[in-house]
Amino acid sequence: MKIIGIDPGLRNMGWGVIAIDGPRLRHLGNGIIHSEGSDLGPRLSTLYRGLCAVIAQHRPDAAAVEQTFVNKDATGTLKLGQARGIALLAPAEAGLEIGEYAPNAVKKAVVGVGHAAKEQIQHMVRFMLPGVELAGPDAADALAIAICHAHHLQGRALRIKTGA
Amino acid sequence: MKIIGIDPGLRNMGWGVIAIDGPRLRHLGNGIIHSEGSDLGPRLSTLYRGLCAVIAQHRPDAAAVEQTFVNKDATGTLKLGQARGIALLAPAEAGLEIGEYAPNAVKKAVVGVGHAAKEQIQHMVRFMLPGVELAGPDAADALAIAICHAHHLQGRALRIKTGA
Repeated sequence: MKIIGIDPGLRNMGWGVIAIDGPRLRHLGNGIIHSEGSDLGPRLSTLYRGLCAVIAQHRPDAAAVEQTFVNKDATGTLKLGQARGIALLAPAEAGLEIGEYAPNAVKKAVVGVGHAAKEQIQHMVRFMLPGVELAGPDAADALAIAICHAHHLQGRALRIKTGA
Repeated sequence: MKIIGIDPGLRNMGWGVIAIDGPRLRHLGNGIIHSEGSDLGPRLSTLYRGLCAVIAQHRPDAAAVEQTFVNKDATGTLKLGQARGIALLAPAEAGLEIGEYAPNAVKKAVVGVGHAAKEQIQHMVRFMLPGVELAGPDAADALAIAICHAHHLQGRALRIKTGA
């Protein structure tokens, strides 16, 4: 079972792919798709094609996307929304079910508490996926989102197994 | 020269296609792509595929998308942003240049003033595109956006012609 995690952003779209091997997690890839310039259409195209290429390469079975903070200014929220639309469209077009997790849930799954600094997340992602080389903070966040979804699925499998 | 106008919305994505015939405008089609349900990924897929199908059918040469109001609540702005990401991606993926116009600019182009009721817009769209049957207010808005872009392009052509 392979999971792609996506951290939506217009400038930097983080992605990370992991595999669930029984109780263990394995790192398969991570990166950042970058877009800049004033023309929004081509920027969104760049992000969309980048994500589609990652999905075609790694063929994940499920996807997880961070629920975006909405406490920014309206213009920032709109930009983030546009990027998030692409982050959801790419896996949906590939027929993947998409889990959505609030930032606090992701932090709790990886660090153990709902509030954690970026460095703590990176530290724990490195610990949970030994040998991983992180493309940057956005890629670490994306892997954390994938780990959160993996824990969710493993928990569900365990509950089914034990009949709980 | 054919122009598609798009009025972005998550529940109702309005579209309208017109042709510039010299100084005249001609209506080619309009409609609303509808999405509902709690799963955002499939909803965005529905909107994206719908827009791609319209673009494939009408083969416009240019696109225009309304600049979204950002005075809503943050959650509403985020939703609108996600829909707007799709409204920009579909024409960008088709290689179209995209004009973006503020709602006031669209109203000014169609009604003559920056503040106008929905009914006024529908009335003027019907007047400017004789015989048009409107699929609904969102489709009328989309046609108004296309008309605004047409005026912009016609004005540019005129300026080039007169050397202004």
